[in-house]
Amino acid sequence: MAMKLYFSSSSPFVRKVRIAAIELGLDDRIELIPTAVVPGKPNADYAREANPLRRVPALTTESGQVLYDSTVICEYLDDRAGGGRLIPQDRERRWQVLTSHALAQGMCESAVLLRYETWLRPEAQRWSVWIDDQWDKIDSGLKWFEEHEQVLREPIDLGQIALGVLLGYLDFRSPDKDWRQDAPKVAAWYGTFCERPSLRETEPANPPS
Amino acid sequence: MAMKLYFSSSSPFVRKVRIAAIELGLDDRIELIPTAVVPGKPNADYAREANPLRRVPALTTESGQVLYDSTVICEYLDDRAGGGRLIPQDRERRWQVLTSHALAQGMCESAVLLRYETWLRPEAQRWSVWIDDQWDKIDSGLKWFEEHEQVLREPIDLGQIALGVLLGYLDFRSPDKDWRQDAPKVAAWYGTFCERPSLRETEPANPPS
Repeated sequence: MAMKLYFSSSSPFVRKVRIAAIELGLDDRIELIPTAVVPGKPNADYAREANPLRRVPALTTESGQVLYDSTVICEYLDDRAGGGRLIPQDRERRWQVLTSHALAQGMCESAVLLRYETWLRPEAQRWSVWIDDQWDKIDSGLKWFEEHEQVLREPIDLGQIALGVLLGYLDFRSPDKDWRQDAPKVAAWYGTFCERPSLRETEPANPPS
Repeated sequence: MAMKLYFSSSSPFVRKVRIAAIELGLDDRIELIPTAVVPGKPNADYAREANPLRRVPALTTESGQVLYDSTVICEYLDDRAGGGRLIPQDRERRWQVLTSHALAQGMCESAVLLRYETWLRPEAQRWSVWIDDQWDKIDSGLKWFEEHEQVLREPIDLGQIALGVLLGYLDFRSPDKDWRQDAPKVAAWYGTFCERPSLRETEPANPPS
Protein backbone atom coordinates (compact mmCIF):
# COMPACT_ATOMS: atom_id res chain seq x y z
CA MET A 1 0.00 0.00 0.00
CA ALA A 2 1.33 3.43 -0.94
CA MET A 3 1.23 6.56 1.16
CA LYS A 4 -1.68 8.84 0.22
CA LEU A 5 -1.29 12.60 -0.07
CA TYR A 6 -4.45 14.71 -0.06
CA PHE A 7 -3.65 17.09 -2.83
CA SER A 8 -4.61 20.31 -4.58
CA SER A 9 -2.56 21.54 -7.56
CA SER A 10 -2.84 25.17 -6.47
CA SER A 11 -1.86 24.77 -2.80
CA PRO A 12 1.64 25.99 -1.92
CA PHE A 13 1.62 23.82 1.22
CA VAL A 14 0.94 20.68 -0.81
CA ARG A 15 3.66 21.71 -3.24
CA LYS A 16 6.18 21.97 -0.40
CA VAL A 17 5.50 18.35 0.54
CA ARG A 18 5.68 17.17 -3.07
CA ILE A 19 9.03 18.91 -3.62
CA ALA A 20 10.37 17.41 -0.38
CA ALA A 21 9.20 13.93 -1.47
CA ILE A 22 10.90 14.25 -4.87
CA GLU A 23 14.13 15.57 -3.36
CA LEU A 24 14.11 12.64 -0.91
CA GLY A 25 13.35 10.06 -3.62
CA LEU A 26 10.03 9.10 -2.03
CA ASP A 27 7.56 10.49 -4.57
CA ASP A 28 6.94 7.15 -6.30
CA ARG A 29 5.60 5.75 -3.03
CA ILE A 30 2.98 8.47 -2.72
CA GLU A 31 -0.44 8.39 -4.35
CA LEU A 32 -2.05 11.81 -4.89
CA ILE A 33 -5.71 12.13 -3.85
CA PRO A 34 -7.30 15.25 -5.39
CA THR A 35 -9.09 17.14 -2.63
CA ALA A 36 -11.14 20.33 -2.87
CA VAL A 37 -10.99 22.68 0.11
CA VAL A 38 -12.46 26.16 -0.22
CA PRO A 39 -13.46 28.34 2.74
CA GLY A 40 -17.23 28.45 3.02
CA LYS A 41 -17.68 25.17 1.13
CA PRO A 42 -17.01 22.62 3.86
CA ASN A 43 -15.75 19.27 2.62
CA ALA A 44 -17.22 17.10 5.38
CA ASP A 45 -15.79 13.81 4.08
CA TYR A 46 -12.27 15.18 4.16
CA ALA A 47 -12.81 16.74 7.61
CA ARG A 48 -13.96 13.37 8.96
CA GLU A 49 -11.44 11.09 7.25
CA ALA A 50 -8.32 13.23 7.33
CA ASN A 51 -8.03 16.79 8.64
CA PRO A 52 -10.81 18.41 10.73
CA LEU A 53 -9.36 21.81 9.73
CA ARG A 54 -10.17 21.00 6.07
CA ARG A 55 -6.71 22.11 5.04
CA VAL A 56 -4.50 20.31 2.54
CA PRO A 57 -2.12 18.55 2.65
CA ALA A 58 -2.67 15.53 4.88
CA LEU A 59 -0.77 12.27 4.45
CA THR A 60 -1.91 8.74 5.24
CA THR A 61 1.10 6.53 5.93
CA GLU A 62 1.37 2.89 4.85
CA SER A 63 0.30 1.86 8.35
CA GLY A 64 -2.78 4.10 8.14
CA GLN A 65 -1.64 6.92 10.43
CA VAL A 66 -2.96 10.33 9.29
CA LEU A 67 -0.42 13.16 9.50
CA TYR A 68 -0.61 16.93 9.00
CA ASP A 69 0.26 19.81 8.61
CA SER A 70 2.75 20.20 5.73
CA THR A 71 5.66 20.73 8.13
CA VAL A 72 4.95 17.55 10.11
CA ILE A 73 4.66 15.59 6.85
CA CYS A 74 8.00 16.97 5.60
CA GLU A 75 9.67 16.02 8.89
CA TYR A 76 8.16 12.53 8.62
CA LEU A 77 9.40 12.09 5.05
CA ASP A 78 12.86 13.40 5.95
CA ASP A 79 13.01 10.89 8.80
CA ARG A 80 11.85 8.08 6.49
CA ALA A 81 14.68 8.97 4.10
CA GLY A 82 17.27 8.61 6.86
CA GLY A 83 16.93 11.96 8.65
CA GLY A 84 18.90 15.19 8.45
CA ARG A 85 18.56 15.63 4.70
CA LEU A 86 16.16 18.59 4.54
CA ILE A 87 16.10 19.43 8.26
CA PRO A 88 19.66 19.34 9.61
CA GLN A 89 20.43 17.38 12.76
CA ASP A 90 23.25 19.69 13.83
CA ARG A 91 21.53 21.88 16.41
CA GLU A 92 22.50 25.41 15.42
CA ARG A 93 21.79 24.75 11.73
CA ARG A 94 18.58 22.95 12.63
CA TRP A 95 17.14 25.95 14.47
CA GLN A 96 18.27 28.28 11.68
CA VAL A 97 16.61 26.16 8.97
CA LEU A 98 13.41 25.72 10.99
CA THR A 99 13.27 29.47 11.64
CA SER A 100 13.83 30.50 8.01
CA HIS A 101 11.25 27.85 7.12
CA ALA A 102 8.80 29.41 9.61
CA LEU A 103 9.43 32.80 7.99
CA ALA A 104 8.77 31.56 4.44
CA GLN A 105 5.78 29.57 5.69
CA GLY A 106 4.32 32.67 7.36
CA MET A 107 4.84 34.69 4.16
CA CYS A 108 2.98 31.94 2.32
CA GLU A 109 0.13 32.09 4.84
CA SER A 110 -0.09 35.83 4.18
CA ALA A 111 -0.16 35.17 0.41
CA VAL A 112 -3.05 32.71 0.83
CA LEU A 113 -4.93 35.14 3.10
CA LEU A 114 -4.48 37.75 0.35
CA ARG A 115 -5.95 35.33 -2.17
CA TYR A 116 -9.00 34.80 0.05
CA GLU A 117 -9.35 38.54 0.70
CA THR A 118 -9.07 39.68 -2.92
CA TRP A 119 -10.75 36.81 -4.75
CA LEU A 120 -13.09 34.84 -2.50
CA ARG A 121 -14.44 37.59 -0.23
CA PRO A 122 -17.20 39.79 -1.71
CA GLU A 123 -15.75 43.11 -2.88
CA ALA A 124 -17.75 45.24 -0.45
CA GLN A 125 -16.29 43.29 2.50
CA ARG A 126 -12.62 43.69 1.58
CA TRP A 127 -10.45 45.74 3.90
CA SER A 128 -7.46 47.59 2.51
CA VAL A 129 -5.68 47.75 5.89
CA TRP A 130 -5.64 43.93 6.03
CA ILE A 131 -4.41 43.67 2.43
CA ASP A 132 -1.59 46.17 3.04
CA ASP A 133 -0.65 44.38 6.26
CA GLN A 134 -0.26 41.00 4.57
CA TRP A 135 1.82 42.51 1.75
CA ASP A 136 3.99 44.25 4.33
CA LYS A 137 4.73 40.90 5.98
CA ILE A 138 5.70 39.40 2.62
CA ASP A 139 7.88 42.39 1.76
CA SER A 140 9.58 42.32 5.18
CA GLY A 141 10.29 38.62 4.80
CA LEU A 142 11.74 39.11 1.32
CA LYS A 143 13.97 41.83 2.68
CA TRP A 144 15.19 39.48 5.41
CA PHE A 145 16.13 36.79 2.88
CA GLU A 146 17.79 39.43 0.67
CA GLU A 147 19.95 40.46 3.66
CA HIS A 148 20.66 36.87 4.75
CA GLU A 149 21.47 35.23 1.44
CA GLN A 150 23.80 32.80 3.21
CA VAL A 151 20.74 30.74 4.16
CA LEU A 152 20.16 30.16 0.43
CA ARG A 153 23.46 28.35 -0.11
CA GLU A 154 23.49 24.65 -0.93
CA PRO A 155 22.65 22.05 0.23
CA ILE A 156 18.90 22.35 -0.24
CA ASP A 157 16.86 22.49 2.97
CA LEU A 158 13.25 22.87 4.06
CA GLY A 159 13.55 26.64 4.46
CA GLN A 160 14.70 27.02 0.86
CA ILE A 161 11.88 24.78 -0.37
CA ALA A 162 9.31 26.90 1.51
CA LEU A 163 10.79 30.10 0.06
CA GLY A 164 10.79 28.64 -3.47
CA VAL A 165 7.16 27.64 -3.04
CA LEU A 166 6.22 31.13 -1.82
CA LEU A 167 7.93 32.79 -4.79
CA GLY A 168 6.26 30.39 -7.22
CA TYR A 169 2.91 31.16 -5.59
CA LEU A 170 3.49 34.92 -5.94
CA ASP A 171 4.27 34.48 -9.66
CA PHE A 172 1.16 32.27 -10.00
CA ARG A 173 -1.37 34.42 -8.13
CA SER A 174 0.16 37.91 -8.23
CA PRO A 175 2.07 38.15 -11.51
CA ASP A 176 1.99 41.96 -11.32
CA LYS A 177 3.94 41.94 -8.03
CA ASP A 178 7.46 42.89 -9.08
CA TRP A 179 9.24 41.23 -6.16
CA ARG A 180 12.42 40.60 -8.20
CA GLN A 181 13.22 44.30 -8.38
CA ASP A 182 13.33 44.69 -4.60
CA ALA A 183 15.13 41.40 -3.93
CA PRO A 184 17.71 40.85 -6.69
CA LYS A 185 19.81 38.32 -4.76
CA VAL A 186 16.75 36.25 -3.92
CA ALA A 187 15.67 36.54 -7.58
CA ALA A 188 19.05 35.27 -8.79
CA TRP A 189 18.91 32.33 -6.39
CA TYR A 190 15.32 31.50 -7.41
CA GLY A 191 16.22 31.65 -11.11
CA THR A 192 18.50 28.64 -10.56
CA PHE A 193 16.47 26.94 -7.82
CA CYS A 194 13.23 26.81 -9.84
CA GLU A 195 15.02 24.80 -12.55
CA ARG A 196 15.30 21.80 -10.23
CA PRO A 197 13.19 18.88 -11.47
CA SER A 198 11.29 18.84 -8.15
CA LEU A 199 10.09 22.39 -8.79
CA ARG A 200 9.43 21.95 -12.50
CA GLU A 201 7.30 18.86 -11.89
CA THR A 202 5.12 20.62 -9.33
CA GLU A 203 4.39 24.00 -10.89
CA PRO A 204 1.16 25.44 -9.47
CA ALA A 205 -2.01 25.15 -11.55
CA ASN A 206 -5.69 25.78 -10.99
CA PRO A 207 -7.47 22.53 -10.17
CA PRO A 208 -9.91 21.30 -12.86
CA SER A 209 -13.32 22.83 -12.12
CA MET B 1 22.66 36.37 29.73
CA ALA B 2 19.11 35.03 29.84
CA MET B 3 17.02 33.96 26.88
CA LYS B 4 14.58 36.67 25.77
CA LEU B 5 11.00 35.90 24.83
CA TYR B 6 9.08 38.55 22.89
CA PHE B 7 5.82 38.47 24.71
CA SER B 8 2.18 39.55 24.70
CA SER B 9 -0.08 38.56 27.58
CA SER B 10 -3.04 37.93 25.26
CA SER B 11 -1.29 35.78 22.62
CA PRO B 12 -2.14 32.06 22.77
CA PHE B 13 1.06 31.26 20.87
CA VAL B 14 3.21 33.03 23.46
CA ARG B 15 1.30 31.24 26.19
CA LYS B 16 2.10 27.87 24.62
CA VAL B 17 5.82 28.65 24.86
CA ARG B 18 5.54 29.91 28.44
CA ILE B 19 3.69 26.78 29.54
CA ALA B 20 6.29 24.60 27.81
CA ALA B 21 9.11 26.52 29.53
CA ILE B 22 7.50 26.12 32.97
CA GLU B 23 6.82 22.41 32.44
CA LEU B 24 10.46 21.95 31.37
CA GLY B 25 11.82 23.95 34.32
CA LEU B 26 13.37 26.59 32.05
CA ASP B 27 11.14 29.59 32.80
CA ASP B 28 13.58 31.21 35.22
CA ARG B 29 16.13 31.48 32.41
CA ILE B 30 13.74 33.45 30.18
CA GLU B 31 13.26 37.19 30.32
CA LEU B 32 9.91 38.42 28.97
CA ILE B 33 10.04 41.38 26.56
CA PRO B 34 6.59 42.99 26.17
CA THR B 35 5.90 43.43 22.46
CA ALA B 36 2.86 44.97 20.76
CA VAL B 37 1.83 43.48 17.43
CA VAL B 38 -1.51 44.48 15.92
CA PRO B 39 -2.39 44.07 12.24
CA GLY B 40 -2.34 47.45 10.54
CA LYS B 41 0.00 48.96 13.16
CA PRO B 42 3.37 47.73 11.96
CA ASN B 43 5.99 47.44 14.68
CA ALA B 44 9.06 48.12 12.54
CA ASP B 45 11.59 47.69 15.36
CA TYR B 46 10.33 44.22 16.15
CA ALA B 47 10.21 43.28 12.46
CA ARG B 48 13.84 44.34 12.06
CA GLU B 49 15.27 42.91 15.28
CA ALA B 50 13.31 39.71 15.62
CA ASN B 51 10.50 38.49 13.35
CA PRO B 52 9.82 40.12 9.96
CA LEU B 53 6.28 38.69 10.15
CA ARG B 54 5.64 40.84 13.26
CA ARG B 55 4.20 37.86 15.06
CA VAL B 56 4.89 36.93 18.66
CA PRO B 57 6.53 34.92 20.10
CA ALA B 58 10.16 35.03 19.04
CA LEU B 59 13.00 33.87 21.29
CA THR B 60 16.57 35.12 21.43
CA THR B 61 18.85 32.38 22.77
CA GLU B 62 21.80 32.98 25.10
CA SER B 63 24.10 32.88 22.06
CA GLY B 64 21.98 35.52 20.27
CA GLN B 65 20.23 33.27 17.74
CA VAL B 66 16.65 34.43 17.01
CA LEU B 67 14.08 31.62 16.79
CA TYR B 68 10.41 31.48 15.81
CA ASP B 69 7.59 30.41 15.44
CA SER B 70 6.11 29.10 18.71
CA THR B 71 6.50 25.48 17.60
CA VAL B 72 10.19 25.86 16.75
CA ILE B 73 10.77 27.56 20.11
CA CYS B 74 8.99 24.72 21.96
CA GLU B 75 11.09 22.14 20.11
CA TYR B 76 14.23 24.10 21.00
CA LEU B 77 13.28 24.27 24.69
CA ASP B 78 12.37 20.57 24.77
CA ASP B 79 15.77 19.76 23.27
CA ARG B 80 17.50 22.03 25.81
CA ALA B 81 15.74 20.14 28.60
CA GLY B 82 17.09 16.81 27.36
CA GLY B 83 14.68 16.04 24.51
CA GLY B 84 11.58 13.86 24.27
CA ARG B 85 9.78 15.44 27.20
CA LEU B 86 6.99 17.33 25.39
CA ILE B 87 7.62 15.95 21.88
CA PRO B 88 8.17 12.18 22.12
CA GLN B 89 11.17 10.61 20.41
CA ASP B 90 9.40 7.30 19.76
CA ARG B 91 8.37 7.68 16.12
CA GLU B 92 4.70 6.69 16.07
CA ARG B 93 3.94 8.74 19.19
CA ARG B 94 6.00 11.63 17.84
CA TRP B 95 3.91 11.92 14.65
CA GLN B 96 0.71 11.55 16.65
CA VAL B 97 1.66 14.32 19.09
CA LEU B 98 2.87 16.62 16.30
CA THR B 99 -0.36 16.04 14.36
CA SER B 100 -2.68 16.66 17.32
CA HIS B 101 -0.55 19.72 18.04
CA ALA B 102 -1.02 20.90 14.43
CA LEU B 103 -4.78 20.45 14.85
CA ALA B 104 -4.96 22.46 18.07
CA GLN B 105 -2.62 25.07 16.58
CA GLY B 106 -4.84 25.40 13.49
CA MET B 107 -7.91 25.79 15.71
CA CYS B 108 -6.05 28.53 17.56
CA GLU B 109 -5.19 30.27 14.27
CA SER B 110 -8.91 30.21 13.43
CA ALA B 111 -9.72 31.69 16.85
CA VAL B 112 -7.24 34.53 16.27
CA LEU B 113 -8.62 35.16 12.75
CA LEU B 114 -12.08 35.37 14.36
CA ARG B 115 -10.78 37.93 16.82
CA TYR B 116 -9.41 40.05 13.95
CA GLU B 117 -12.62 39.63 11.94
CA THR B 118 -15.04 40.50 14.74
CA TRP B 119 -13.08 43.09 16.69
CA LEU B 120 -10.38 44.72 14.57
CA ARG B 121 -12.06 44.81 11.14
CA PRO B 122 -14.64 47.58 10.59
CA GLU B 123 -18.16 46.21 10.94
CA ALA B 124 -19.17 46.89 7.35
CA GLN B 125 -16.27 44.77 6.07
CA ARG B 126 -17.02 41.67 8.13
CA TRP B 127 -18.08 38.55 6.23
CA SER B 128 -20.35 36.02 7.89
CA VAL B 129 -19.23 33.16 5.62
CA TRP B 130 -15.66 33.58 6.87
CA ILE B 131 -16.78 33.76 10.51
CA ASP B 132 -18.89 30.61 10.16
CA ASP B 133 -16.04 28.82 8.40
CA GLN B 134 -13.55 29.53 11.21
CA TRP B 135 -16.04 28.39 13.86
CA ASP B 136 -16.69 25.24 11.87
CA LYS B 137 -12.97 24.41 11.93
CA ILE B 138 -12.87 24.92 15.70
CA ASP B 139 -16.00 22.80 16.20
CA SER B 140 -14.66 20.02 13.94
CA GLY B 141 -11.39 19.99 15.83
CA LEU B 142 -13.17 19.83 19.20
CA LYS B 143 -15.21 16.91 17.91
CA TRP B 144 -12.00 15.14 16.86
CA PHE B 145 -10.48 15.52 20.35
CA GLU B 146 -13.78 14.41 21.92
CA GLU B 147 -13.62 11.22 19.82
CA HIS B 148 -9.89 10.64 20.43
CA GLU B 149 -9.66 11.30 24.16
CA GLN B 150 -6.76 8.82 24.38
CA VAL B 151 -4.45 11.61 23.15
CA LEU B 152 -5.32 13.54 26.32
CA ARG B 153 -3.89 10.91 28.68
CA GLU B 154 -0.75 11.66 30.70
CA PRO B 155 2.08 12.39 30.31
CA ILE B 156 1.67 16.00 29.18
CA ASP B 157 2.78 16.71 25.60
CA LEU B 158 2.89 19.63 23.17
CA GLY B 159 -0.47 18.70 21.61
CA GLN B 160 -2.18 18.85 25.00
CA ILE B 161 -0.55 22.20 25.77
CA ALA B 162 -1.77 23.63 22.45
CA LEU B 163 -5.30 22.36 23.11
CA GLY B 164 -5.29 23.79 26.63
CA VAL B 165 -4.14 27.13 25.25
CA LEU B 166 -6.90 27.12 22.61
CA LEU B 167 -9.59 26.35 25.21
CA GLY B 168 -8.26 29.09 27.50
CA TYR B 169 -8.32 31.51 24.58
CA LEU B 170 -11.95 30.60 23.76
CA ASP B 171 -12.94 31.25 27.38
CA PHE B 172 -11.00 34.54 27.30
CA ARG B 173 -12.26 35.94 23.98
CA SER B 174 -15.54 34.09 23.39
CA PRO B 175 -17.02 33.44 26.84
CA ASP B 176 -20.48 32.95 25.29
CA LYS B 177 -19.25 29.98 23.23
CA ASP B 178 -20.55 26.98 25.14
CA TRP B 179 -17.94 24.50 23.90
CA ARG B 180 -18.17 22.38 27.07
CA GLN B 181 -21.67 21.20 26.23
CA ASP B 182 -20.60 19.70 22.89
CA ALA B 183 -17.32 18.24 24.16
CA PRO B 184 -17.88 16.91 27.70
CA LYS B 185 -14.83 14.62 27.73
CA VAL B 186 -12.57 17.45 26.59
CA ALA B 187 -14.21 19.69 29.19
CA ALA B 188 -13.55 17.16 31.98
CA TRP B 189 -9.91 16.83 30.90
CA TYR B 190 -9.47 20.63 30.71
CA GLY B 191 -11.02 21.09 34.16
CA THR B 192 -8.06 19.19 35.61
CA PHE B 193 -5.42 20.33 33.11
CA CYS B 194 -6.02 24.05 33.65
CA GLU B 195 -5.21 23.62 37.36
CA ARG B 196 -1.56 22.92 36.54
CA PRO B 197 0.69 25.71 37.86
CA SER B 198 2.00 26.30 34.30
CA LEU B 199 -1.51 27.17 33.13
CA ARG B 200 -2.49 29.14 36.22
CA GLU B 201 0.63 31.30 36.00
CA THR B 202 -0.01 32.19 32.36
CA GLU B 203 -3.72 32.96 32.20
CA PRO B 204 -4.47 35.25 29.25
CA ALA B 205 -4.95 38.96 29.93
CA ASN B 206 -5.29 42.08 27.84
CA PRO B 207 -1.94 43.90 27.62
CA PRO B 208 -1.78 47.26 29.43
CA SER B 209 -2.91 49.94 26.94
